[in-house]
Amino acid sequence: MLTFSRRVTIEWQHCDPAGIVFYPRYFAMFDTSTTMLVEHTLGMSKYQLLKKYDFLGYPMVETRSRFMLPTRFGDEVEIKTTLIEVKHSSFTVEHQILKAGELAVEGRDTRVWVVTDPANPDKFKPKPIPPEVIAKLIAEA
Amino acid sequence: MLTFSRRVTIEWQHCDPAGIVFYPRYFAMFDTSTTMLVEHTLGMSKYQLLKKYDFLGYPMVETRSRFMLPTRFGDEVEIKTTLIEVKHSSFTVEHQILKAGELAVEGRDTRVWVVTDPANPDKFKPKPIPPEVIAKLIAEA
Amino acid sequence: MLTFSRRVTIEWQHCDPAGIVFYPRYFAMFDTSTTMLVEHTLGMSKYQLLKKYDFLGYPMVETRSRFMLPTRFGDEVEIKTTLIEVKHSSFTVEHQILKAGELAVEGRDTRVWVVTDPANPDKFKPKPIPPEVIAKLIAEA
Amino acid sequence: MLTFSRRVTIEWQHCDPAGIVFYPRYFAMFDTSTTMLVEHTLGMSKYQLLKKYDFLGYPMVETRSRFMLPTRFGDEVEIKTTLIEVKHSSFTVEHQILKAGELAVEGRDTRVWVVTDPANPDKFKPKPIPPEVIAKLIAEA
Repeated sequence: MLTFSRRVTIEWQHCDPAGIVFYPRYFAMFDTSTTMLVEHTLGMSKYQLLKKYDFLGYPMVETRSRFMLPTRFGDEVEIKTTLIEVKHSSFTVEHQILKAGELAVEGRDTRVWVVTDPANPDKFKPKPIPPEVIAKLIAEA
Repeated sequence: MLTFSRRVTIEWQHCDPAGIVFYPRYFAMFDTSTTMLVEHTLGMSKYQLLKKYDFLGYPMVETRSRFMLPTRFGDEVEIKTTLIEVKHSSFTVEHQILKAGELAVEGRDTRVWVVTDPANPDKFKPKPIPPEVIAKLIAEA
Repeated sequence: MLTFSRRVTIEWQHCDPAGIVFYPRYFAMFDTSTTMLVEHTLGMSKYQLLKKYDFLGYPMVETRSRFMLPTRFGDEVEIKTTLIEVKHSSFTVEHQILKAGELAVEGRDTRVWVVTDPANPDKFKPKPIPPEVIAKLIAEA
Repeated sequence: MLTFSRRVTIEWQHCDPAGIVFYPRYFAMFDTSTTMLVEHTLGMSKYQLLKKYDFLGYPMVETRSRFMLPTRFGDEVEIKTTLIEVKHSSFTVEHQILKAGELAVEGRDTRVWVVTDPANPDKFKPKPIPPEVIAKLIAEA
């Protein structure tokens, strides 16, 4: 399975008055890890990707997470992101945050490849993921 | 059921290069709405609550969300938060974000009332929610 | 002088492990207040403004702030934003955050009205603020 | 002079609807760089530092910044942070963000070493920086 791992040091700015990560910041970390997985697999930056395939991005449509252990500024954690499914115009990834080898957080996200809806510029419309992108994601997986 | 609603204007700072809310910011809005529901029901601020009952907070243990419609800076939305379950040391809320009456985002969170684990100051331990707090949450619900 | 004031309740999400506002969040509050001042004066949202005058925004070029008193989750503060200068393609505002009547934070920002630089799409170029916009800002001031 | 440099890739989450870094996020980067400079010089994490010297942190008292070039998701920048003054209970650092060798952002921050004010737990009070901390900061500088 296609996996991207990185080590992240939890920063003061991520933490709340309880001294631990304010959980919405985990989602920002997951967003970055998802993009890093895509960038590494396709060999181009998200900026280049958006230009090349003329789409708006891959916004979240469904996410769920569980939080087992708190993490705190100064903690070094590992974030592992795995592509588990690629469909016509969507894909699903799972994340694990490990702290000293223990599972601290896990998440699962489904995202959709979108363009602006021509019928309503305030809405989005799914667009098929380009075949060459799917091919690379599946080949690596 | 105990419900707290508020109107929020989506700000530039909430949005990403696609021009829409960067989804982790919805979780920060849900966090605030949950605290506002608790504060209004108990008649005291979170700051006072933490002092009075000598606990660390009610961190997230499980969350899931679905995103149906994008929202954009300048949009005015309604965030409705409903307490759906109170247990011994945890509670569950559901959120809905409505944009012009349409459901844009929905979420469901379970949180645990915690103190520092005396056996390990790096971990948390559930603590029973005080009976008078449960009584007020249930009475209102 | 053209002034916009609003009351803000400091939230858990704004605060760091010292229990006080993480200072970069004040800048996000100032950004929002600046836009609210502009929107109220011109009678349109920032979204409408960007469309109508076909520009990219008014990014910060210079800012300075002083922090006199900490603020904490649950504190209710007043944020006063005053337009102090409008030039050809830039404007300057000052902010004050008052906590129980005492000055907690003050700031001064200069922003430039910009478009994409046609010679280099990675850079911005100042654009004259439309005369009718300047007229309204000055009339109110 | 004591300097700490690091390379940072600008992320989607740092950027606003104009596609560039939302400037308050630069302050969060500067905060992290300042702490990294302190941690590397003293050979301990901020968490250990707060415990060892029993203080609340080194909140910002005055900051100023200038923004010369926008940066965008995918840009790799260098953040250089230099300690330029250490006083009895405060210190001043300067930051530079370089993008492809060009100066994109510069900032200057003064911070104060504080404890809770015993006369008023809602306020802070400067505390002398421990002599051994000053000695290390100055020796390296």
